[in-house]
Amino acid sequence: MDEAAKKQALRMIPYGLYIGGCAEGLRVHAFLLSWLSQCSFKPPLVMAAIKVDSKAHAIVERSGAFSVNLLDPAQKPVAASFLKHAVLEGDKLSGHHYEVGNTGCPILDEAAAWIECRVRDRVKLGDHTVFVAEVVEAGVRRSTRSLAHEDTGWHYGG
Amino acid sequence: MDEAAKKQALRMIPYGLYIGGCAEGLRVHAFLLSWLSQCSFKPPLVMAAIKVDSKAHAIVERSGAFSVNLLDPAQKPVAASFLKHAVLEGDKLSGHHYEVGNTGCPILDEAAAWIECRVRDRVKLGDHTVFVAEVVEAGVRRSTRSLAHEDTGWHYGG
Repeated sequence: MDEAAKKQALRMIPYGLYIGGCAEGLRVHAFLLSWLSQCSFKPPLVMAAIKVDSKAHAIVERSGAFSVNLLDPAQKPVAASFLKHAVLEGDKLSGHHYEVGNTGCPILDEAAAWIECRVRDRVKLGDHTVFVAEVVEAGVRRSTRSLAHEDTGWHYGG
Repeated sequence: MDEAAKKQALRMIPYGLYIGGCAEGLRVHAFLLSWLSQCSFKPPLVMAAIKVDSKAHAIVERSGAFSVNLLDPAQKPVAASFLKHAVLEGDKLSGHHYEVGNTGCPILDEAAAWIECRVRDRVKLGDHTVFVAEVVEAGVRRSTRSLAHEDTGWHYGG
């Protein structure tokens, strides 16, 4: 296989850039999430790939739930604040106020929209685990397209 | 759950629009594919959701391989020609010349780039099956971003 072509072809796939959320009891956590897609209409399922060696992975494995906070295209700075490990201080995650949803996962006040998901199955093969999860809650504050990697100049893929 | 919010939030996720390819021996087939994401760097894996009741699903289940043809943003007409069931005539699929890759799956001459994938695992839960597959071949003819749903005005999600 042509490794350079593989990298280039995989980087042509468009991705949104989301703030994932998870929780163990009242200890919430947030993480950047890119590899996310719907994978069923009925029931509504998504597939999300989360890095195996991350704190988020450990929490989602135990709790079986995560949230996805969708940002609007102008909110690259919000995403940037989660490039480092999220810091939980009171009712803020890395400086961003949140509330918890029905799954206990954090929903940022600044999110344009969000979904909450319960893990139904997973595939553990590579450096990320594929979590297949049912969408159990959703909300929309602003009608917009999601912040995407091409808005940021960043890449996650290849 | 607010069904309208669920639909609207899920439609904010950006998707490319690809021509999937599969084969049983020399009988090749092509299909529209939207729900695709990388899900591991090492090994390079993708996750693709394929409709359970489709011909493509039956073939990929049996053959364990598929190709993904990436189009450029001006190639909506190529995608449109696969909205109906693909028609195989000689060395053309719905009018588009193809060659077969190492997996036997069709690669369109018009594709800007392509990957070939071998299925490693799957999750069968909803109206699409999640195939987790290793990228085993790749090629790039034109450096471009992929045709995306937002280029077409179409939706697949919600």
